[in-house]
Amino acid sequence: MNTFGRQFRVSIFGESHGNAIGVVMDGVRAGIPLCEEDFMADILRRKSGKKGTTPRIEADEPQILSGVFEGHTTGAPLTVIFRNANTRSGDYSLFRDIPRPGHADRCASIKWHDFNDPRGGGHFSGRITLPIVAAGTVAKKMLGICPRATVTRLGGVSRAEALAGRTDDGSLSDQQIWNDVLDAALRERDSVGGVVECRIDSVPVGLGEPFFDSVEALISHAIFSIPGVRGIEFGDGFAAADMKGSEHNDPYGDNDPDGSGPLPSKNGAGGVNGGISNGNPLVFRVAFKPTSSIGKAQRTYDFSKGMMTTLETPGRHDACFALRTPVIVEAMAALVLADLAAVASR
Amino acid sequence: MNTFGRQFRVSIFGESHGNAIGVVMDGVRAGIPLCEEDFMADILRRKSGKKGTTPRIEADEPQILSGVFEGHTTGAPLTVIFRNANTRSGDYSLFRDIPRPGHADRCASIKWHDFNDPRGGGHFSGRITLPIVAAGTVAKKMLGICPRATVTRLGGVSRAEALAGRTDDGSLSDQQIWNDVLDAALRERDSVGGVVECRIDSVPVGLGEPFFDSVEALISHAIFSIPGVRGIEFGDGFAAADMKGSEHNDPYGDNDPDGSGPLPSKNGAGGVNGGISNGNPLVFRVAFKPTSSIGKAQRTYDFSKGMMTTLETPGRHDACFALRTPVIVEAMAALVLADLAAVASR
Amino acid sequence: MNTFGRQFRVSIFGESHGNAIGVVMDGVRAGIPLCEEDFMADILRRKSGKKGTTPRIEADEPQILSGVFEGHTTGAPLTVIFRNANTRSGDYSLFRDIPRPGHADRCASIKWHDFNDPRGGGHFSGRITLPIVAAGTVAKKMLGICPRATVTRLGGVSRAEALAGRTDDGSLSDQQIWNDVLDAALRERDSVGGVVECRIDSVPVGLGEPFFDSVEALISHAIFSIPGVRGIEFGDGFAAADMKGSEHNDPYGDNDPDGSGPLPSKNGAGGVNGGISNGNPLVFRVAFKPTSSIGKAQRTYDFSKGMMTTLETPGRHDACFALRTPVIVEAMAALVLADLAAVASR
Amino acid sequence: MNTFGRQFRVSIFGESHGNAIGVVMDGVRAGIPLCEEDFMADILRRKSGKKGTTPRIEADEPQILSGVFEGHTTGAPLTVIFRNANTRSGDYSLFRDIPRPGHADRCASIKWHDFNDPRGGGHFSGRITLPIVAAGTVAKKMLGICPRATVTRLGGVSRAEALAGRTDDGSLSDQQIWNDVLDAALRERDSVGGVVECRIDSVPVGLGEPFFDSVEALISHAIFSIPGVRGIEFGDGFAAADMKGSEHNDPYGDNDPDGSGPLPSKNGAGGVNGGISNGNPLVFRVAFKPTSSIGKAQRTYDFSKGMMTTLETPGRHDACFALRTPVIVEAMAALVLADLAAVASR
Repeated sequence: MNTFGRQFRVSIFGESHGNAIGVVMDGVRAGIPLCEEDFMADILRRKSGKKGTTPRIEADEPQILSGVFEGHTTGAPLTVIFRNANTRSGDYSLFRDIPRPGHADRCASIKWHDFNDPRGGGHFSGRITLPIVAAGTVAKKMLGICPRATVTRLGGVSRAEALAGRTDDGSLSDQQIWNDVLDAALRERDSVGGVVECRIDSVPVGLGEPFFDSVEALISHAIFSIPGVRGIEFGDGFAAADMKGSEHNDPYGDNDPDGSGPLPSKNGAGGVNGGISNGNPLVFRVAFKPTSSIGKAQRTYDFSKGMMTTLETPGRHDACFALRTPVIVEAMAALVLADLAAVASR
Repeated sequence: MNTFGRQFRVSIFGESHGNAIGVVMDGVRAGIPLCEEDFMADILRRKSGKKGTTPRIEADEPQILSGVFEGHTTGAPLTVIFRNANTRSGDYSLFRDIPRPGHADRCASIKWHDFNDPRGGGHFSGRITLPIVAAGTVAKKMLGICPRATVTRLGGVSRAEALAGRTDDGSLSDQQIWNDVLDAALRERDSVGGVVECRIDSVPVGLGEPFFDSVEALISHAIFSIPGVRGIEFGDGFAAADMKGSEHNDPYGDNDPDGSGPLPSKNGAGGVNGGISNGNPLVFRVAFKPTSSIGKAQRTYDFSKGMMTTLETPGRHDACFALRTPVIVEAMAALVLADLAAVASR
Repeated sequence: MNTFGRQFRVSIFGESHGNAIGVVMDGVRAGIPLCEEDFMADILRRKSGKKGTTPRIEADEPQILSGVFEGHTTGAPLTVIFRNANTRSGDYSLFRDIPRPGHADRCASIKWHDFNDPRGGGHFSGRITLPIVAAGTVAKKMLGICPRATVTRLGGVSRAEALAGRTDDGSLSDQQIWNDVLDAALRERDSVGGVVECRIDSVPVGLGEPFFDSVEALISHAIFSIPGVRGIEFGDGFAAADMKGSEHNDPYGDNDPDGSGPLPSKNGAGGVNGGISNGNPLVFRVAFKPTSSIGKAQRTYDFSKGMMTTLETPGRHDACFALRTPVIVEAMAALVLADLAAVASR
Repeated sequence: MNTFGRQFRVSIFGESHGNAIGVVMDGVRAGIPLCEEDFMADILRRKSGKKGTTPRIEADEPQILSGVFEGHTTGAPLTVIFRNANTRSGDYSLFRDIPRPGHADRCASIKWHDFNDPRGGGHFSGRITLPIVAAGTVAKKMLGICPRATVTRLGGVSRAEALAGRTDDGSLSDQQIWNDVLDAALRERDSVGGVVECRIDSVPVGLGEPFFDSVEALISHAIFSIPGVRGIEFGDGFAAADMKGSEHNDPYGDNDPDGSGPLPSKNGAGGVNGGISNGNPLVFRVAFKPTSSIGKAQRTYDFSKGMMTTLETPGRHDACFALRTPVIVEAMAALVLADLAAVASR
């Protein structure tokens, strides 16, 4: 269902073109300083409006409905909502009959007997990741740890390749780095996918349980709840399947950050052994598919007329929504770790 | 914690060299024919004893403690245990001080203050997948659907490459197909990893929820609970990140298996749209790391003496435990689908 | 935590004098006709404003934020909020130092390190039962069954006693029936308690599980979540403890409502055997304490000054909040049954 | 389902005349000294064999299957089973056709389509409380707190009345105290009910949540999972409904056990305000019905022949099973508090 977490529990709600979307966070520690402004930095990172992202710009203004008093969390459920305003629902009315390839239009119709809200993707919309980003802001405050996610690959071009022959003194945005890739996709009214890598330093040793709440199990559960994810791998990931044990295993090395003895070196395991955090940075990569909605003509079926047809998806879409996902990936990782940290503190 | 599922709920327990390991299944429908013999086919598929798998052979004899009466499930919790017998616990005593690279020895010691059972990996042991296989047998009976998993890659060699120039009329076991790879690993006292692909036909449309209980989220959660998994991908997987929308999207095609209209063709999505099963076969791949325990010398640290040391892991191990995992992968997929089907039937 | 239910799951949030209170319902079936007006009948039953209830009257206007599209539930989370408006927060500022007898002021301060919102009881407020009533409205629509709760005793006077010598053709409100009791309490600036009995007809046979989700277990869990409950009993209740088996047991009788054989007669069990609904009406009684906030002087302690003191609780309160609880008791019963029915339908 | 608790989670399984009954405890802290002998004191208190209790005496010998290593809990799931041996299943075969008044025979048949194990009550049997008692032993070790429950009323006679004119220097067992009541019930082949009061000292302030996990909500949930409970009340209980606020409220008094300021005096609230423990002893009373199985003739229905009939329930039963429940009530209270304490420690 629409809830995640055991001790720090996040419930999301809302439809893309409904009255509002939002999140209820239960299990937030009392006494954390929090105001609406605190959400803005993360929200802005998710925002669209640059090349390769949808021109639909919402106000994305968070309203705290409950759980904060005099600038601090109260320990009661913390609710944040975002009103929907800038909607053009007319765009979406035909997808019940003529489902868009790559979208859930058809299986949602079957599952909910056509009662689901189809406007803007309804409850499936990537817009629902906005309250998740807000929950991530709170989770990071609870944790005192900041996951860091970056796009490492876009449209089949790695960051290194995209930067080849250019000067990136850190001033280039991802949109600028992959400018040519995005231009080509826009020209063709097509879209591209990407890979996001997330690294989390300073994870304490001992989070997670071997069965069934391993760190990887919970993070992958959360990450696959982001629309458009096709794969996840930790540490050496799929490459580990081609390695020998003597190559993949992390020998204990000379890195002893806190004097309690060395940690595994090399981090082929991505920071987790047996499902439990081992003191190394947590590292995982996420594969995002290309945006499903494209202007380019696609073959689909008209279920009302019972015949094949062709669709050029109208509406405003991201040419590469992966560009907007790093802060969402970080939020999901923070949700998991905040929950595990709450559980572990018993 | 050690429980998975909402309506069909599986709780596992046990340590590799303790009295017994087992599973309690709650939410099993009453009236399913079941006896202890029914578990044996799956158990045998998981069993070791061939080249590349550990020579430790347990009786692996299931005992039903509850939930079955006169050959049928009762609707009350169904408990199956396996007594541990063939244990050589002496092998494992030193790993508290000198942790094995790639194992959870060290982080388990920290997490449980050295009270965890270290013998045979304790509760981390791959042996704990045996009750999961038993639960899978029950899940498959509940579902009436059989996931099919196969090793597609081992030690960096694909099945096609391994079969090149040989006749495989289906009579070759995986051990035979990758015989050379396994021989080399054994010779070097090393280990190799592998990739397992799972395909599930006849999944009904409409299982799963967009947030947070998408089909991929739940399956990845379950799969990452198998020891040694490093990655998972659905459909086109990581390759999707390099594709264009027009390549990755599944256009609606002319396949109309039940006359209710066509399904998405091509199945780049792996059978899931928006987290919901779309009527196509569910397809995913799992990357297994090479077995961590190897005889080859590895650098580690002696935490009792405070110095670096070298370890040649003693004991009996799989050179490639991935060979034993297809039935476990199938079991995990079946657990998820049985739970989702129970939830969906409301 | 602030969530109840497994398949039909209700999460409540809000503080009495915060921005809003509300509820998220997950697992609502798609296609149920629903609009904001539908909530009003139940909301009005809970409303105060008559003798014996607080003069604070909120607008109590429900806003549906999500989960409804074109007048029907969508299957996505259904969120309803109520803005708080008519608040006089000044009344409550001193209770951190000088806790009101019978209230949670003191233990909330300790639990949340004084970060809890103390205004109007904060998250402890009886006002939080308003979203529960809204959830009950939805649950009743899902169930197609209406629990019926009535005040059977108030201020130590049973309904029969209160009606003695008067004509009640059904036109008398509870306030009128117990007019003298309420007058006396108001005169003394004191409060009185009451007993509410709930009866639910047409409960299908077979809801509930012997351990731990018996019908009584789940209903009592929900009922004790209503502020001010001191006890609950089913069927013969505490009187059963004084009975013999031959008196308390319900023999199978000649009542055979649907031709499938007789039901237990007499209903001493209150409609449940072994935790499972048996086809008889579900009957239970709830004891509500007198309102804690009274104008009459009470002994308490000034924790800031470290000395005993006397408190005449200011603010607007119910002389008997039990009068407002029947619709809340019904809502809680409906939440439980809607969840059990959803679970049972698998 | 058959699981209770969030952080300290107890799952029970088994049928009265099946192979074994047992419990899996998840979330047990590592390092608690524990061996099989530790369970015996509580098990003996539950045991039957004296006047008024069934002559069926099981060995009741606990076997630890997992979760203990070298005499200490490991932090992994702790499993304890009890083999069933002394069964006379023939006694129970007819209750499918001719349900016993007061039992779940009929609704279980309907719920599980006759696949439930009917022998000895199957999964409904009071015998399933044996693993709960074992879980209670562990919970009490985790908590360091011992609930104390006593029979206060039996067959309509209070302890004080039963002791009138006799010397009870603490040497009299409950069987001896209510000897006359039990003799009369046995003579008439009937049964009697009773009331058990439980008191728990030294509960820390701050356990529980106002919604929905109040202390009373969770304890009542657990207590109503004991077969045969008809009611529960906290503190003044049902009597509170007849009180005025000025009588029922607990003024802050001069009792200041730890120097941090006074606690509520008088304890009419039973140790809980707003669902949260307030530092006073937790006090609640439980009403147990008379044993349903009686030798005395009762009217019932023969569903196979379609006619009314008379049943003199054969088999071995407790004339008053309430005598055996105090240790079960304590166990349930301990389960709840151990879970809440684990949750609160975050």
